[in-house]
Amino acid sequence: MAVYTQVDDEELIAFLETYDLGELLSCKGIAEGVENSNFYLHAGAGSYILTLYEKRVDEAELPFFLGLMEHLFARGVACPQPVKNRRGQALGRLAGRPAAIITFLDGYAIHRPDAAHCAALGAALAKMHIAGAGFSQRRANALSVSAWRGLFAPKAARADEVAPELRRTVSEELDFLEARWPHSLPIGVIHADLFPDNVFFLGEKISGLIDFYFACTDAFAYDLAICFNAWCFESSGAYDPAKGRALLEGYRSLRPLTRAEMEAFPTLARGAAMRFLLTRFVDSLDVPAGALVRPKDPREYLAKLLFHQQIGSARDYGLSP
Amino acid sequence: MAVYTQVDDEELIAFLETYDLGELLSCKGIAEGVENSNFYLHAGAGSYILTLYEKRVDEAELPFFLGLMEHLFARGVACPQPVKNRRGQALGRLAGRPAAIITFLDGYAIHRPDAAHCAALGAALAKMHIAGAGFSQRRANALSVSAWRGLFAPKAARADEVAPELRRTVSEELDFLEARWPHSLPIGVIHADLFPDNVFFLGEKISGLIDFYFACTDAFAYDLAICFNAWCFESSGAYDPAKGRALLEGYRSLRPLTRAEMEAFPTLARGAAMRFLLTRFVDSLDVPAGALVRPKDPREYLAKLLFHQQIGSARDYGLSP
Repeated sequence: MAVYTQVDDEELIAFLETYDLGELLSCKGIAEGVENSNFYLHAGAGSYILTLYEKRVDEAELPFFLGLMEHLFARGVACPQPVKNRRGQALGRLAGRPAAIITFLDGYAIHRPDAAHCAALGAALAKMHIAGAGFSQRRANALSVSAWRGLFAPKAARADEVAPELRRTVSEELDFLEARWPHSLPIGVIHADLFPDNVFFLGEKISGLIDFYFACTDAFAYDLAICFNAWCFESSGAYDPAKGRALLEGYRSLRPLTRAEMEAFPTLARGAAMRFLLTRFVDSLDVPAGALVRPKDPREYLAKLLFHQQIGSARDYGLSP
Repeated sequence: MAVYTQVDDEELIAFLETYDLGELLSCKGIAEGVENSNFYLHAGAGSYILTLYEKRVDEAELPFFLGLMEHLFARGVACPQPVKNRRGQALGRLAGRPAAIITFLDGYAIHRPDAAHCAALGAALAKMHIAGAGFSQRRANALSVSAWRGLFAPKAARADEVAPELRRTVSEELDFLEARWPHSLPIGVIHADLFPDNVFFLGEKISGLIDFYFACTDAFAYDLAICFNAWCFESSGAYDPAKGRALLEGYRSLRPLTRAEMEAFPTLARGAAMRFLLTRFVDSLDVPAGALVRPKDPREYLAKLLFHQQIGSARDYGLSP
């Protein structure tokens, strides 16, 4: 949630003239998206989101993200559609930054999802996984198991400031995850960050998935494990088996899970908890200036990790294998 | 530019149900307004701004601000119109804060206004001054000459951190302003903060005046002097006589200025520079957590004050008396 770059009205008008969207009517910085500057843009042709990509985003990867949204939108996934300029390009430059205009999606994030929301999410995730087939670009997951130790090491000395024994807990868990990580599950395009903030609802129905800037090529079941962590725990920290079942049943209604995926699920859930524990830990030590959000608490994901460590099989989550 | 309070989707839906605006479609925190939390709100009936009033705003004064917008809107001033709930009230409560919904105005702030923009602003200001007649509520200007010494005193010891000799300069100028301040000029409702950020244009035409939360009952010519400071100087710091003339001619096209107003104008311009020098100075020492804006530089207004100190009469600004 941030606006890191201010846009001058004259520059913006000139930028908008490279599109077929009519005249500028309004442009307001919005508190959405942690990595980039986002603006609500009202033009003659309708409402849009204008995104300026900030330094943390690798410009070379933008064609993957924008191309993916276009691919998914064309296959019926409710997600923003990149708007092309008069030269047929989805990516331009504004205020010294790579910039894109995407369609505005109605809907709002649900902050206390119930089982029905989880079921809808499961189905939407499976639909996205299926729709991603045929997308020709690939992007390795820069935040998967092989990256975690390198992410942690430079800051490990400060880990115990965040929670007692955190350094040892992470180190031992990394040993476990590196040894046990499944490498032959079905893969494809995953969202990799489908938290409640990134899923818009209108009532009980999903109106859109947003923020594809962590999307990559990785195991489908790992994406599901990320959602499982993000959606199926109470704010008290307790796991809710009804939500877990709803999420997986929603998913399986469109894409069956293989036996290998279900067997690996507890390990994937531990890995997903580790990934967010680590990035939150690192971010909590280094909040970008101008960010509107408070850093998220890494200890939420430490608690989830410790919970998953007690799990022997998917059955222990109350899930059918 | 800030979002200090996060709004829960369930609370927001319940709040919106107290209005006749249809269902919630979207709500996004926007980077607009320094004192309050503002949201772009899309509902079945259209687009709105939802404002949550934060602690720095005195709740008892909100009926003045909302009543004024309603009064001005009804008299043809392009400004937001407060939306009343089903009980006929413009002010409600949301997320523990006083909250209001106002109509969304298209348009965008011009950051490098030219003389034509200044002329349009002058006319819009005069129109607002005239339209304010008959508004039954009064509100003293809490940031006028009688308040300045008290605003400065608690922080005076830190003044020279900001600029050399600032403490002495302010102290001597306050002596001057307190002795010479005009107290019998024509008064009425003034905006008191009509900076470029608070004036929306579509092309060369003004589409709306926003942010009436400093509005009060004070001298019309003081409001003009605030605009003169905010609109008629280059970003280099140089005064532009063409813009000054355009502003005053635009104003006079709808409301003639009296001889007393023109004679007092250089003193009013010094006072307006002092008011923003002081609040920027105080704010620069105390930036609210969660604010998206960098504090504005008080030295910009120190330079303007020093410029005005050299002025003998309105003629020295290139203005006709």
